[in-house]
Amino acid sequence: MSAPIDFWFDFSSPYGYLMAERIDALAARHGREVRWRPFLLGAVFKHTGGQPLPAHPMKGPYSRHDLERSARFLGVPLKLPESFAVSSHQACRVYYWLESRDPKLARDFALAVYRAFFAEGRDITSVDMLADIGESLGLARDAVAGATADDAVKNHLREVCEQAIAGNVFGSPFVVIDGEPFWGADRLPQIERWLETGGF
Amino acid sequence: MSAPIDFWFDFSSPYGYLMAERIDALAARHGREVRWRPFLLGAVFKHTGGQPLPAHPMKGPYSRHDLERSARFLGVPLKLPESFAVSSHQACRVYYWLESRDPKLARDFALAVYRAFFAEGRDITSVDMLADIGESLGLARDAVAGATADDAVKNHLREVCEQAIAGNVFGSPFVVIDGEPFWGADRLPQIERWLETGGF
Repeated sequence: MSAPIDFWFDFSSPYGYLMAERIDALAARHGREVRWRPFLLGAVFKHTGGQPLPAHPMKGPYSRHDLERSARFLGVPLKLPESFAVSSHQACRVYYWLESRDPKLARDFALAVYRAFFAEGRDITSVDMLADIGESLGLARDAVAGATADDAVKNHLREVCEQAIAGNVFGSPFVVIDGEPFWGADRLPQIERWLETGGF
Repeated sequence: MSAPIDFWFDFSSPYGYLMAERIDALAARHGREVRWRPFLLGAVFKHTGGQPLPAHPMKGPYSRHDLERSARFLGVPLKLPESFAVSSHQACRVYYWLESRDPKLARDFALAVYRAFFAEGRDITSVDMLADIGESLGLARDAVAGATADDAVKNHLREVCEQAIAGNVFGSPFVVIDGEPFWGADRLPQIERWLETGGF
């Protein structure tokens, strides 16, 4: 059994959302599992001096256009929020709290958060909204809210972000297959050929 | 007859080189012509505050790796120079001098310059080297050298860079099809579908 593919993403990253809608099925076609690794891109940017796409004077408007076209290209529903530079630490905390209990459910939660934000225009920074999403998956609202304030979970998320920096994960989405790094949803065709051929 | 597709690129851009090796054949399969528009990405960066890829602490090393993999993916020969952040204004000047006389020959020259730099490891900042390339295409060496010092050509190149800024051409390669912008060699699959379908 091969090691799982690592899929790093920030919940506020729309290209990460596009990847999230495709990576599991693509990996499964090649008999591979995916380990979802939400992290805080802002923590990496503090380290690298990077800046979010919308901050760039020309790339910002282009990015919105490219995102909408890329979603149509991939057949993924997208309703881009007015601003998507939001803080995603609460969603990350719930994810890692859940992952330690039920990894499959944690992934369902992550995909539901992504869809809430990028297909349904809901506010994923709100603990209430995260509790709504958790409830729709059978979780108790107060358990979800509790996870966002749990010190052990907070520390775990900090460690994950340090692992991202140590692993040169400088963007979202970022997919690592057996040590081979792929940055961006537009690397899906290369990821597919890599899995087909075992490297090229 | 449709308007030509605009293909903007900097001669120092390796992803631009990958696009240069593919765009004409792709356009021709859909009955379209391509207008090559070399420009100075540095002039745009002065305007936008962008920075070349190799300057970024994590993206730099990743980019070299991604470029080599992308070249293999596309089947394009690539021997990446140690440093590719070179000034390409002399090559641009020869290109526009030639374009006003023989657009087809100008394109052959541009592709030869790209191959000299990114497949053969030659120094494209040298006027002597540009004269060598010109000579291989039947041009007189002193005519090529003269073009690099011609004031009318210099002014024309400045205007082209202003057009790039005015047209929000913030990167290389940058392809514009009937007003639709595509940034990056990784947009080749979207360009292909756009040409197939007339937009999606």
